[in-house]
Amino acid sequence: MIRFDKARTHVEIPASFAVLTSRNDGMLQENAMVRRNEIREGEVAVTPPPPTDAGLTFIGRIHTPWTDRTMTPRQGRHDGPECRIEIFEPWVAALKGLEKFSQVEVLYWLDQSRRDLVLQSPASNRELHGTFSLRSPVRPNPIGTSVAKLVRVEGNMVTVQGLDCLDGTPLIDLKPDRCQFTPIAPKQPGDDEIAS
Amino acid sequence: MIRFDKARTHVEIPASFAVLTSRNDGMLQENAMVRRNEIREGEVAVTPPPPTDAGLTFIGRIHTPWTDRTMTPRQGRHDGPECRIEIFEPWVAALKGLEKFSQVEVLYWLDQSRRDLVLQSPASNRELHGTFSLRSPVRPNPIGTSVAKLVRVEGNMVTVQGLDCLDGTPLIDLKPDRCQFTPIAPKQPGDDEIAS
Repeated sequence: MIRFDKARTHVEIPASFAVLTSRNDGMLQENAMVRRNEIREGEVAVTPPPPTDAGLTFIGRIHTPWTDRTMTPRQGRHDGPECRIEIFEPWVAALKGLEKFSQVEVLYWLDQSRRDLVLQSPASNRELHGTFSLRSPVRPNPIGTSVAKLVRVEGNMVTVQGLDCLDGTPLIDLKPDRCQFTPIAPKQPGDDEIAS
Repeated sequence: MIRFDKARTHVEIPASFAVLTSRNDGMLQENAMVRRNEIREGEVAVTPPPPTDAGLTFIGRIHTPWTDRTMTPRQGRHDGPECRIEIFEPWVAALKGLEKFSQVEVLYWLDQSRRDLVLQSPASNRELHGTFSLRSPVRPNPIGTSVAKLVRVEGNMVTVQGLDCLDGTPLIDLKPDRCQFTPIAPKQPGDDEIAS
């Protein structure tokens, strides 16, 4: 157990929001736990509103070699292990044409992440970073995005390289990489607008 | 009104899912309507499961010059009009450090899009593309992603260029562009894994 001075962890947050720093009354669990869901020294949590503004449907499941959060890559690499994205019905027909692209954007739901931190200390060194300046899985809506290298599409299974998520992670979207995609729909007036 | 031959619109879909092609009994509304929420000739809709696997919280609102879906750009451009991303409390503290990046990834909820199409015809020419091979706003989880140019961060307002969404679009996430971000957290074993 690591004990630290709670006075050092104060950060200004609007008074109307509950601030929960350093759960367990100033005690942090050992480091391996910190890397799962414990709060690190100085980190700031808020009481978020209930996540009821919109609902997601899981459209598939991602199969990767990583079964523990302390093993996953921080960032995927295109020469990394092959991962398989399984698409559930009724969405399999929506894969038509995906094989034409060599890079696909993958959106997934980081279902094991807490959602209430606004300031985080990824290096566990008291240096605090705003959640929106990090690509940490801990965020108000824990959605991961990766641009993966497409290896093949077979039936309901899409094989890629470049993911960094846990085995079993729910899939929420799949689209061509923006750099490889040219809109098929006719142009609209906004396409020609530039800053005045 | 445009009438077309329903026989041409048949696409194979597993029999267990209801297939709704060409709403309004084979009649399409005039083209302007098609560009909002009508189904186009040949497009295939399914009956999706209820979107209750996970819940989103809207963390802000995006202000853009476009108030009608027939005016928005198909893809944003970094020399496009300035757009303002308003962050709601309790998330404003999470902006700390975002200003260090020149490009930010923006995730938003395309709240006016239908979610049930698996095959789409963006050019309205009967050519059918799978939803996952398009960056269309119509998708099972209508999440748009853009990499925008960061202009400035002031208080709870982030000004960017390069968005393509409607005025008032709900914000769901903001993170540094993956190409500019180096993980701060210590490396994990997965970072060194390559395909065997």
